[in-house]
Amino acid sequence: MATDFRLKDQLPNLTKRIVGTYDSLGSINHLGHCPLPSYDEVVAVLDDLDEILFPGYRRREGLHRSNVEFYVGDLIGRLHDRLTRQIGRALRHEAGATSDCNTIEDFEALGQAKTMLFLDRLPELRSTLATDVRAAYDGDPACKSPDEVIFCYPGLEAITVYRLAHLLYELDIPFIPRMMSEWAHGRTGIDIHPGATIGNYFFIDHGTGVVIGETCHIGEHVKIYQGVTLGALSFATDGEGNLVRGLKRHPTIEDRVVIYANATILGGETVIGHDSVIGSSVWITKSVDPHSTVVLEKPQLRIRDAAGAAK
Amino acid sequence: MATDFRLKDQLPNLTKRIVGTYDSLGSINHLGHCPLPSYDEVVAVLDDLDEILFPGYRRREGLHRSNVEFYVGDLIGRLHDRLTRQIGRALRHEAGATSDCNTIEDFEALGQAKTMLFLDRLPELRSTLATDVRAAYDGDPACKSPDEVIFCYPGLEAITVYRLAHLLYELDIPFIPRMMSEWAHGRTGIDIHPGATIGNYFFIDHGTGVVIGETCHIGEHVKIYQGVTLGALSFATDGEGNLVRGLKRHPTIEDRVVIYANATILGGETVIGHDSVIGSSVWITKSVDPHSTVVLEKPQLRIRDAAGAAK
Amino acid sequence: MATDFRLKDQLPNLTKRIVGTYDSLGSINHLGHCPLPSYDEVVAVLDDLDEILFPGYRRREGLHRSNVEFYVGDLIGRLHDRLTRQIGRALRHEAGATSDCNTIEDFEALGQAKTMLFLDRLPELRSTLATDVRAAYDGDPACKSPDEVIFCYPGLEAITVYRLAHLLYELDIPFIPRMMSEWAHGRTGIDIHPGATIGNYFFIDHGTGVVIGETCHIGEHVKIYQGVTLGALSFATDGEGNLVRGLKRHPTIEDRVVIYANATILGGETVIGHDSVIGSSVWITKSVDPHSTVVLEKPQLRIRDAAGAAK
Amino acid sequence: MATDFRLKDQLPNLTKRIVGTYDSLGSINHLGHCPLPSYDEVVAVLDDLDEILFPGYRRREGLHRSNVEFYVGDLIGRLHDRLTRQIGRALRHEAGATSDCNTIEDFEALGQAKTMLFLDRLPELRSTLATDVRAAYDGDPACKSPDEVIFCYPGLEAITVYRLAHLLYELDIPFIPRMMSEWAHGRTGIDIHPGATIGNYFFIDHGTGVVIGETCHIGEHVKIYQGVTLGALSFATDGEGNLVRGLKRHPTIEDRVVIYANATILGGETVIGHDSVIGSSVWITKSVDPHSTVVLEKPQLRIRDAAGAAK
Amino acid sequence: MATDFRLKDQLPNLTKRIVGTYDSLGSINHLGHCPLPSYDEVVAVLDDLDEILFPGYRRREGLHRSNVEFYVGDLIGRLHDRLTRQIGRALRHEAGATSDCNTIEDFEALGQAKTMLFLDRLPELRSTLATDVRAAYDGDPACKSPDEVIFCYPGLEAITVYRLAHLLYELDIPFIPRMMSEWAHGRTGIDIHPGATIGNYFFIDHGTGVVIGETCHIGEHVKIYQGVTLGALSFATDGEGNLVRGLKRHPTIEDRVVIYANATILGGETVIGHDSVIGSSVWITKSVDPHSTVVLEKPQLRIRDAAGAAK
Amino acid sequence: MATDFRLKDQLPNLTKRIVGTYDSLGSINHLGHCPLPSYDEVVAVLDDLDEILFPGYRRREGLHRSNVEFYVGDLIGRLHDRLTRQIGRALRHEAGATSDCNTIEDFEALGQAKTMLFLDRLPELRSTLATDVRAAYDGDPACKSPDEVIFCYPGLEAITVYRLAHLLYELDIPFIPRMMSEWAHGRTGIDIHPGATIGNYFFIDHGTGVVIGETCHIGEHVKIYQGVTLGALSFATDGEGNLVRGLKRHPTIEDRVVIYANATILGGETVIGHDSVIGSSVWITKSVDPHSTVVLEKPQLRIRDAAGAAK
Repeated sequence: MATDFRLKDQLPNLTKRIVGTYDSLGSINHLGHCPLPSYDEVVAVLDDLDEILFPGYRRREGLHRSNVEFYVGDLIGRLHDRLTRQIGRALRHEAGATSDCNTIEDFEALGQAKTMLFLDRLPELRSTLATDVRAAYDGDPACKSPDEVIFCYPGLEAITVYRLAHLLYELDIPFIPRMMSEWAHGRTGIDIHPGATIGNYFFIDHGTGVVIGETCHIGEHVKIYQGVTLGALSFATDGEGNLVRGLKRHPTIEDRVVIYANATILGGETVIGHDSVIGSSVWITKSVDPHSTVVLEKPQLRIRDAAGAAK
Repeated sequence: MATDFRLKDQLPNLTKRIVGTYDSLGSINHLGHCPLPSYDEVVAVLDDLDEILFPGYRRREGLHRSNVEFYVGDLIGRLHDRLTRQIGRALRHEAGATSDCNTIEDFEALGQAKTMLFLDRLPELRSTLATDVRAAYDGDPACKSPDEVIFCYPGLEAITVYRLAHLLYELDIPFIPRMMSEWAHGRTGIDIHPGATIGNYFFIDHGTGVVIGETCHIGEHVKIYQGVTLGALSFATDGEGNLVRGLKRHPTIEDRVVIYANATILGGETVIGHDSVIGSSVWITKSVDPHSTVVLEKPQLRIRDAAGAAK
Repeated sequence: MATDFRLKDQLPNLTKRIVGTYDSLGSINHLGHCPLPSYDEVVAVLDDLDEILFPGYRRREGLHRSNVEFYVGDLIGRLHDRLTRQIGRALRHEAGATSDCNTIEDFEALGQAKTMLFLDRLPELRSTLATDVRAAYDGDPACKSPDEVIFCYPGLEAITVYRLAHLLYELDIPFIPRMMSEWAHGRTGIDIHPGATIGNYFFIDHGTGVVIGETCHIGEHVKIYQGVTLGALSFATDGEGNLVRGLKRHPTIEDRVVIYANATILGGETVIGHDSVIGSSVWITKSVDPHSTVVLEKPQLRIRDAAGAAK
Repeated sequence: MATDFRLKDQLPNLTKRIVGTYDSLGSINHLGHCPLPSYDEVVAVLDDLDEILFPGYRRREGLHRSNVEFYVGDLIGRLHDRLTRQIGRALRHEAGATSDCNTIEDFEALGQAKTMLFLDRLPELRSTLATDVRAAYDGDPACKSPDEVIFCYPGLEAITVYRLAHLLYELDIPFIPRMMSEWAHGRTGIDIHPGATIGNYFFIDHGTGVVIGETCHIGEHVKIYQGVTLGALSFATDGEGNLVRGLKRHPTIEDRVVIYANATILGGETVIGHDSVIGSSVWITKSVDPHSTVVLEKPQLRIRDAAGAAK
Repeated sequence: MATDFRLKDQLPNLTKRIVGTYDSLGSINHLGHCPLPSYDEVVAVLDDLDEILFPGYRRREGLHRSNVEFYVGDLIGRLHDRLTRQIGRALRHEAGATSDCNTIEDFEALGQAKTMLFLDRLPELRSTLATDVRAAYDGDPACKSPDEVIFCYPGLEAITVYRLAHLLYELDIPFIPRMMSEWAHGRTGIDIHPGATIGNYFFIDHGTGVVIGETCHIGEHVKIYQGVTLGALSFATDGEGNLVRGLKRHPTIEDRVVIYANATILGGETVIGHDSVIGSSVWITKSVDPHSTVVLEKPQLRIRDAAGAAK
Repeated sequence: MATDFRLKDQLPNLTKRIVGTYDSLGSINHLGHCPLPSYDEVVAVLDDLDEILFPGYRRREGLHRSNVEFYVGDLIGRLHDRLTRQIGRALRHEAGATSDCNTIEDFEALGQAKTMLFLDRLPELRSTLATDVRAAYDGDPACKSPDEVIFCYPGLEAITVYRLAHLLYELDIPFIPRMMSEWAHGRTGIDIHPGATIGNYFFIDHGTGVVIGETCHIGEHVKIYQGVTLGALSFATDGEGNLVRGLKRHPTIEDRVVIYANATILGGETVIGHDSVIGSSVWITKSVDPHSTVVLEKPQLRIRDAAGAAK
C-alpha cells in the first residue's frame, strides 16, 4: 500500500476541528449527559415481544404446551429488566435531569411502574392482534392461511409495532414509542404515529408509503392500501409563528371504511363516514357521509395513438 | 437500581395470563406442531443464491476462473441441503400434517425432488437476469456501468428475488416464495407477488411503492417507475360473502410498455397494449390499444400568486 | 432424513452448467478482476461517520468533553484507512485497470488524497446538518425535541447520507456515492441521487417514496413530504438511440418551497419559484412563479351514497 | 498485491490430489456417513448445564426465586432437544448404521429415552457438587468464599464436567462423554476419564497435569494437587499383541486420602488405604495401608556452593 | 424425528425438582442478590489492557505515533467505565450488601477511586513488562526477536496478567484478581496467585504446570521452567481444625535464581538464596544458601537391557 | 451511578503518560511499521487446514464423495490467499523492511511461492497423520475407535499443528510456525517446537505438560505420556555471555521408544536407543542403549503408619 504518512499526520488536527464543532453546534451531539435510551435495546425489546405475541413463528422452534410457559416467563422477566432501564432513561432525559445523574433511582422506579402497566396489557393486546390477523386473511384473496399473515405480511408487522408503541404512548413514555414506530417504518415503509388511535380488525395491504398521522382516529374493520396518506392540511402557528403542537390535525375514519391505493385524506376535521369506500388516488380534504363511495371521476387522460392522434 | 422486587413477583402471574391466551386465541400461535420454514434459513438461501447468480460482487472476493467452480459447487451443495429441509417443512405444513411429525420422510423426499427441479433452472435464470441488467443500464441515464446495476439497484434486487420466488411458486411450493418476496419488499419497497409472470428485459427504476399483483402478466422490455400499482379493481365474493381466490384480478402489460411514476393500473381484464407509454400519476381501469401514449390531461390545478390571485 | 444420494450426485453437473454461463454471460459476474469496493466496508464507513457527526446518540454511550476527542480521533484514523482502500478500489475499477492489479499503488495514493479532501469537509458538514435538524424540529408539530430528530427521523438519515455521498460525488469518486445512497434508500424509502445539490435547512417528513434525481437543484429551507418525485420528463437520445447521459433532466426548487405528499414535479427546465407551495398529489411539468400556491382544483370525484345515487 | 495467477491455476490440481487421499486413506475422513455428534452442540450443552447447576454465576444475571424456574425450565427444554439429537447421532454411529440413514427414528427415540434418564439425575448431581464446592473451600487457605470456588476454580470446572460425562458414560452413550471430558481437559489441564468413579467432597487444587484413568476408583473427601497421575502400569495384550480393553488398569484411592503435587500412582491393583497422605513427587506402584504417610526419603540431591564444593 | 411428546411432558416436573434444590442447597446458587462481577467483562478488560500495554501486536493494526494516542485514550476511557462497574460489584458483594442493592452508589464511587489508582500504575507497569520481555529474549536460545516473545510466549501472557491482577490485589479488590489469574491459568497452564510478589526480569519458559503460591516472594532476574511448583508444605489449622488463612506458606526465591523443569520447592520458611540453580525434578523443603547448585544425585534408576539383565 | 466526573478528567493526562512510554520503551510496541502477521488469521488458517486434513469431523456436516471436492477446492483457494498475505507480512518483518512498506510486492510474491510449496505437501501430510491416528488407536486401551482419536484426542491436535508448523519452518517462514505451535500449546498443554523432527506413528497420550525442544529428533512409533520433557541441559554462551542460538540442545529418541509420564530427558547428545522404555518420573541426562528399560529404582520413600512409626 502506498499510504503517505505525512497526510495521516494531518488527522489529529482535523480531529480537533471536528471536536471543536461539538461546542459551537451543541444541539446535535449528546455529550456529558446521562444516556439516552439505547436503540439496540429497544429493537431487542420488540423482538422479544414478537416472540411472546406470536409464539412459534420466528425465533424459537419446538414450542408446545408444556414448555411454552417457561419460555414466555423467561422472556417476560428479561423484558421487565430491559424496559425498566430504557423507560427510566427516557423519563430522566425528558425531565431534563441531565446535570445530576445520581437521581437515577427515582426514574428507574417510575420506569418499573410503567413497565408493569405496559406488560399487564399484553394478554388483551393479543386479542386485538388476533382480529388484525383475521382481517388480513379475510381481506386478501392472495392469502393462503392465517399463518402466512403472521409470517409474511408487513402490514401486520407495522400494526403490531404500532399497537405496542401506542400502549407506551398512552403511558406518557417519551422517545421510545417513536423509536419503535420508526423502526417498523424502516422495515415496512408504513409510518403509523404511535399517537393515532386504531380499532380492531385493521388491515393494511402492501403498505409501502402509508402515512397515518398522530391525531388520526380510525374505527374498526378498516382496510387501507399502499400509499394512503391520512395527513394534516396545514399547521396552526401561534403569534410568533411557531407551530402549535397537540391539536387534532389528522382525519377520522369511521368503521368499515376501505381506502384504496395512494388515496390522500387530509385535515383534522375531515370525517370519512362509516361503511364508505375511498377509491384509488382520490384526494379528499372534506368530510364524507357514511355509506359513500368516492372514486376519481372518469380520469382526465390524453390518449394518443402511435400516430400521435388524440382519441 | 431501584427495582422493586414486589412488582417483579407479579410477573409469574402475568405469564400465566399470557399463556392462557394461547389456548383461547389459537390461530395466532404455532405450538405443538412440526416446525414452519425458518425465516433465517430462507434469507440465507437467498444470500447464497445471490452469490451464485452474480459471483464476485458481494460476499466473496478474489474469485477467478480457476476457483469459481469450487466456490459455486460448494454453495450449490449447501443450498441443496438447506432448501430440501425448508421445502420439506413447507410441504408438510401445507398438507396439514401437524399431528404426526413422524411422517417426515415423505415430505423431505418430495422437498428434495422439488429442490432439484428448482436448482436445475438456475443456468437459464442467469440468462434472464442478464437481460434485466442490460435493461437497467440501457434505461437509466444516471447509470455508469452494468456493475453499478448489480451493485446498487434495488430494482434488480427485487426482480432477482421475484424470479427465484416465481420458480418456487411454479413448483407449487407453499409459504417460501412469499417469504422471499416480502423480504425483498422490506429491503426495496418493491412488492412483486411471486405469482406474477414477467418477461425478459424488465426494469424498475427507484421502485419504492411499486406493487405488482399475483395475476399480472407482464411482457418483455417493460419499464416501470416508483409508486406504480398494477392492482385489482375489486374482489369477487362467493354466495357467502367470502373472497373467491385464484381469479385473474390484475392487469396485463404487453411488450415494450413504459409506466411512469405513481401510475395506477387496475383490473384483471385491463390490457395495456404493446409499445404504449403510461404517464406519471395516471389512473387507468380500462384497456389501452397498442402504441398509445396516456398522460394526465392538462392538470387541474389552482395556482395563486403571493397576493392570492388565481392565475 | 430421506435424502436421496443419487439426486445429489447430479449437483456437480449442475455446477458445471452454472459456471459455464459465467463465460457466456460475462457482463453479470466479476471474475479475475481486482476487487470492487466492499459493500460491507462502505456501510461500516457510514456507521463510523454517523458516530462522528452525531456523537452520543447511537453506538457509544458515556461520551463527554474529556474523552470524546480520543473517540473521534480513533474513528477518524480508522475511516482514513478504510476509505483510502475502498476509494482506491473504486478508482482502479473505473480506470479499467482490470488486467494488472500490480498498479495498485497509484490508485491507493490517489484514494488517500481524495480521502483527505473528503474528511476535511466534515467540520463544515456538521454545520449544515445542524440546519437540517433545526428545520425538522421547526417543521413538524409532532416533534418533541431536536434529539428526537436525530434519533428517529428517517428524513434526517437520508439527508445525512446524501450529504456525505455528495461530497464524494464532487470528488469524482465512482461507485461509492451510489452505494451509500442506495443503502439509505433501502432503509428509509427515500431515494436522493448523490449528484443533486441541496441547500441548508432541508426537511423531508415521513419520506417513503421520495425520489430526487441526479440533476436537481434545491435551495434552502425547502420542505418535502412523502411520495414526492422530482424527476425527468423524458430522456434525450443520440443519433443511435442511446441515452445521452449528463444533461440536466430534473427540476430546480428555489428557497423556502414546500412540496406536499405525492406531488410530482418533472423536467430539467422546470423551476419552482421561491416561497411557493405545491399541494399534495399535484403533477407539474412547467415552471411556477415565486410565491405561488399550486393545489389540485376541486377534486374530480364521483361520490355515491349507499343507494348508489350520485351526489 | 503481486499475486501470480499462474500459480493459482495449480490449485485445482492440488485439490484433486488431496481429495484423492480421501479414498486411499479412508480411516481419517468422515464422508458419506450420517453425521457424528456436533462438537459445538456438545459444548453448548455443557454451557447450558452449567447455568442450571450453578445459576446466577455466569451467563444470566438478575435471577431470583420468582423467575429462576422459567429460566431453568426453558433451558431444560432446549437441553432435551439438543441432547436427544446428539445422543441419537452417537448411538447410530456406534451401531455402524452408516449405510442407511433412514433408520434415524429408532436411534432418536433411544436417544430421547437416555436423555430423560440423564436429566433426571441432575437434582441429585447438584447435591454432590455442593460437597465438592465445600471441599474446595475447606481445603484451600487462599480461598475467600464458596462463590470464589464456583467462579474461579478450574478444579471444580473439571469435576463438574466429569460428573456430567460420567452420568452419560453410565448410560452407555458413546463419544459424547469423552468429547466433554476433553473439552474440560483443554480448558483446565485436568484429564479425568468419564469412566472413573469418584466419591463426594472431591477437591483438585491448581490441577494442571492431573490425569485420572478410566478404571480409577476414588473414595470420598479425597484431595489431589497439580500434576498427579493415577495411571496404568502396563497394558495387557492378547495372544495377537492387541491391547485388551476394559480391564481395571488404574489405582483405587480410598476415603480421606490426600495426594500432593506431581505424585504418580500406578496400577490396577494398587490401593491407597483410607486416611493416607501421599507426598509431593512420590512414585508408587504398590498398595499402601490405611493411615499411611508416604513422602520422598530425604531427597537425593547434590548441592554445590558457588565454588563448586559439594555440601 | 421420533420425539415422544409424553416424555417431554415430564420436563416441567423435573424443572420443579431442580429448582427445589436451589432452596435446599443454597450455597451453590446466586439468586436474589445483587450481581457478581461479570466474567465476560473481566476478560474484555484484560483484552483492552493488552492493547494498551503492547500496542500494535494483536487487535488493532496500522497504529503509528500520530494516531496511537487517540486509540489508547479511547481504550482508557472504556476501561475506566468497565472497571468502575465491575470493581463496584466486587466490593459490594464482598461487603455482604446482598439485601439492599440500593446502596449501589457508595460502592461504585469506591470502585471508581480504586480504578483510578489502578490505571495510574499502568505507565510504570510497562517498564516492568519491558524487563520481562528482555528476560525472555535473553533466556531462550530458540527465540528469534523480542516481537516473538510478545506475540507467542505463554509465559509473558501469564506474567502480564499476574502483574495486572497483583495491582488490583494490592488495592484490596476482591474476586477480580483471581478471575483474571484463573483465566490466564486456563490459557497457559501457568497458575500464579495474584498475591505473590515477583521482581523484574521474570521469565517462565514453556510454563505448563507452573504453580506459584499466594505468599511467594520472588526476586529479580528469576527464571522458571515448566512444571515448577512453589507451594506450601502443609496448612496450619486453628483449634477447631479450620484452616488458618493468611500465613506465609510459600517459599522465597532470591535474585538471579534459575529453577529447572518440574522442580518442587515447598514451605513458607524455605529460602532459595540468590544466584542459585535448582535442577530439573528436584524436590526441596529446606532453604538453600546463595550461589548453590542443586541437582538430583545420580538418578536412582534400574536399567535393564533387552534380555532383562540389570546394568 | 455515582461516577465522579472530576476523576474522569484525569484520564487524558494518564493517556499522555502511557503513550509517552511508547517512545521510551520502544521494544514492546509495534508502531509505525508495516503490519505483523495477524494472530486471528493464522488461527483461521489452522481451522481451515483441519477441515481439509480431517474432513467431516468438525465444521461442515453432510460431506460425501460428490461434494467434498468443491468444499476442499474452495478452502484451498481461501487458504492460498490468506497464507500468501500472512507469510508475506512475516517475511517483510523478518527482513526488517519496516521503513518502506511500498516494497510489499516482493514479499507477497515470495509469500505466494512459499505458500504453494506448503500446500503442495498436504496430500503427503495426510498419509503421515493417518499413521498418527493409527498409533493412538493401537496405543490406548481406553480408545473405542479411530473416529474418537480425531474427534477428542489433544495429542493428535498438537501433533497435527506441529506437522503443519514444521512444514512452514522448513520453508524458512518466520513467526508463523511459532504462532501456530503456541496456539496448540494453549489448547492442549503440549508444547512441541516447530523445529523438532518427528517420525510417523507418533502418539502422545493425555499430554498436558509435554515439552519437545527445537532440536529434538524423534523416530517412528514413539509414544509419549503427559509431563514428559525432552529438553536442554544448559545453554552455550559466546565470549560475551550471549546465548549461542542454533546448536543441537535437545535429545534424540530412536524408533519404538516409549516414555512414560513425567520423565525428563535432557541434552543434545543424549540418545535413547531404539526399542527402549523410559519409566514414569525418570530423569535422564545420558544416552541409553537400544532395547533398554529404565525405571526408578525402588522408590526412596518414607512410609509412616497412623501412629507415626516408620515402616
